[in-house]
Amino acid sequence: MTEEIVVIPGDGIGQEVVPAAREVLETVGDFDFVEARAGDHVLESEGAALPDETFDLAASADATLFGAAGESAADVIIPLRRAVDSFVNVRPAKAYPGVDALRPETDLVFLRENTEGVYGGHEQRLTEDLSTLTRVITDSASRRLARFACEYVEEGEWDGFTVAHKANVMRETDGRFKTAVEDVAGKRSVETDDALMDALAMNLCLFPEEYGVIVCPNLAGDMLSDLAAGLVGGLGLLPSANLGPDRGLFEPVHGTAPDIAGQGIANPSATILSAAMLLDSLGYGEESQAVHAAVEGVLADGPHTPDLGGDAATDEVTAAVIDRLD
Amino acid sequence: MTEEIVVIPGDGIGQEVVPAAREVLETVGDFDFVEARAGDHVLESEGAALPDETFDLAASADATLFGAAGESAADVIIPLRRAVDSFVNVRPAKAYPGVDALRPETDLVFLRENTEGVYGGHEQRLTEDLSTLTRVITDSASRRLARFACEYVEEGEWDGFTVAHKANVMRETDGRFKTAVEDVAGKRSVETDDALMDALAMNLCLFPEEYGVIVCPNLAGDMLSDLAAGLVGGLGLLPSANLGPDRGLFEPVHGTAPDIAGQGIANPSATILSAAMLLDSLGYGEESQAVHAAVEGVLADGPHTPDLGGDAATDEVTAAVIDRLD
Ligand SMILES: CC(C)[C@H](C(=O)O)[C@@H](O)C(=O)O
Ligand SMILES: CC(C)[C@H](C(=O)O)[C@@H](O)C(=O)O
Repeated sequence: MTEEIVVIPGDGIGQEVVPAAREVLETVGDFDFVEARAGDHVLESEGAALPDETFDLAASADATLFGAAGESAADVIIPLRRAVDSFVNVRPAKAYPGVDALRPETDLVFLRENTEGVYGGHEQRLTEDLSTLTRVITDSASRRLARFACEYVEEGEWDGFTVAHKANVMRETDGRFKTAVEDVAGKRSVETDDALMDALAMNLCLFPEEYGVIVCPNLAGDMLSDLAAGLVGGLGLLPSANLGPDRGLFEPVHGTAPDIAGQGIANPSATILSAAMLLDSLGYGEESQAVHAAVEGVLADGPHTPDLGGDAATDEVTAAVIDRLD
Repeated sequence: MTEEIVVIPGDGIGQEVVPAAREVLETVGDFDFVEARAGDHVLESEGAALPDETFDLAASADATLFGAAGESAADVIIPLRRAVDSFVNVRPAKAYPGVDALRPETDLVFLRENTEGVYGGHEQRLTEDLSTLTRVITDSASRRLARFACEYVEEGEWDGFTVAHKANVMRETDGRFKTAVEDVAGKRSVETDDALMDALAMNLCLFPEEYGVIVCPNLAGDMLSDLAAGLVGGLGLLPSANLGPDRGLFEPVHGTAPDIAGQGIANPSATILSAAMLLDSLGYGEESQAVHAAVEGVLADGPHTPDLGGDAATDEVTAAVIDRLD
């Protein structure tokens, strides 16, 4: 059986980095690729940033590789996460030899809750003056995330994980999140510690080497993983996997980079690393590791795109990665 | 008229740094000091971390200087902010010559909304599985904060300010926040730009010199100001002012530091800088600047407490600051 992979380049440099990652996937496996459309340019021409057709394709494919979307990002990415029924967003943030990093010791993985918190869209304009948003936290989503986290740290041979929360203020909701996650970990004898998300923001800057896997509510995961991008030198290197029970959605953490879009100089590393996570989700563990190692090799030795201080084009970097896979 | 200043040392190193800051205040002015109690040790002995008496004192004094509280921090600090009717938490985060900083170019001021967002305590356990928190954003609080921000940047001769938000996801609530703040600034011809709070977390690490005054919803301000503490070398240097229409509450951003409490080696700088903000709020602008300059001088030339790599005691640092004021 040949797996079906939906590719959605989206806007801006998504149009450059997704084809690059697809080339890499073609090098290591035999997949059915289906191109789909989303983003600002689709909103303009079709009136919807995420056409139903694209949603349906992502909802049934074995995996989806997404690039980036512009102003319409939230209207694309949040429904796409739902399309694959994704309950966790896996966001590794690692410093690589050869790449300038504020904190070269950084080697973190954020496991971000991907369905609830402030992302539910439950907002109301109650009066002329006052609006509300209902932040939802459930035991079931928190426990599902925790079970995943336990398996993740066991497979990756991490020591355990840190639970990020603000349960001293959000007592009922983050209290529930923290208790549920810790309860699951305790039953599985996985070690945890916990950290207030404000103090964690500081400590990740000061002592990144003291942290590894960090389990977060949705928005905290969004902010803390971007913070970690700052520690490793920017978003250009951060891949992510939105995992559901049967399929996943894989995307670089970066956006459309309008300042360099169309010039063929975007750094494809984050998207190629996202493709490596995709391979892993389909059971191609060896191929995934090979792609990861190839990207790491190119980051160490070059060629580098301009964001990393080099002058190579996207396709030169991609070719160098593929070279290492042969 | 002699101003009344309530001093609440609280727990841990609060007991050491608040008396230090009080000594500094006594050097530059003639105030009526009233000691009040709060924190874990009061919870133990009296059953409430914040006795009514302390609340009432803070609510009527000209200013309150608070140290730190342990486990009970939220039960102390959130009501105390309400006691002074504080609508803004002013949090400067500045790197000082003489102090190791990850980002020595950092010179930021966070203006954190201090009354709403997720801090309202509106939480409910709806079912066995599900809890909710209602995040509240009003035009009135957002506009009050914005008016303050406009005056702040005008007085401080900043170019304008940045509005932090996540209006692409929290469209109604952060949309309201952003629109209200920008509307006030526009009418007063104060320049603003806006930043998504996740991207801002990264960019503060990468390009802190590109930012100055940052206006934030409550929890974002909590996290981003702690992040900035990481950029300037830790919480030991960060003061804060919770300002209301008639009075303020001044506190270091750090906690009780149980690991070093009782040893007389806590860094008093953050609390002395908080006292400088207190002086300013009472109209003692010159004295405030003198205290600020004295702390800056001691940070540059020493003596330094152990957290900054020195071996001086709290009272030696305090004496050195006072020396510079004579
Ligand atoms: C575009 C936005 C909705 C999204 C998020 O907040 O999840 C983005 O910031 C991300 O982290 O993927
Ligand atoms: C103790 C806690 C309630 C408080 C807050 O979240 O405001 C603290 O983190 C702070 O920043 O002063």
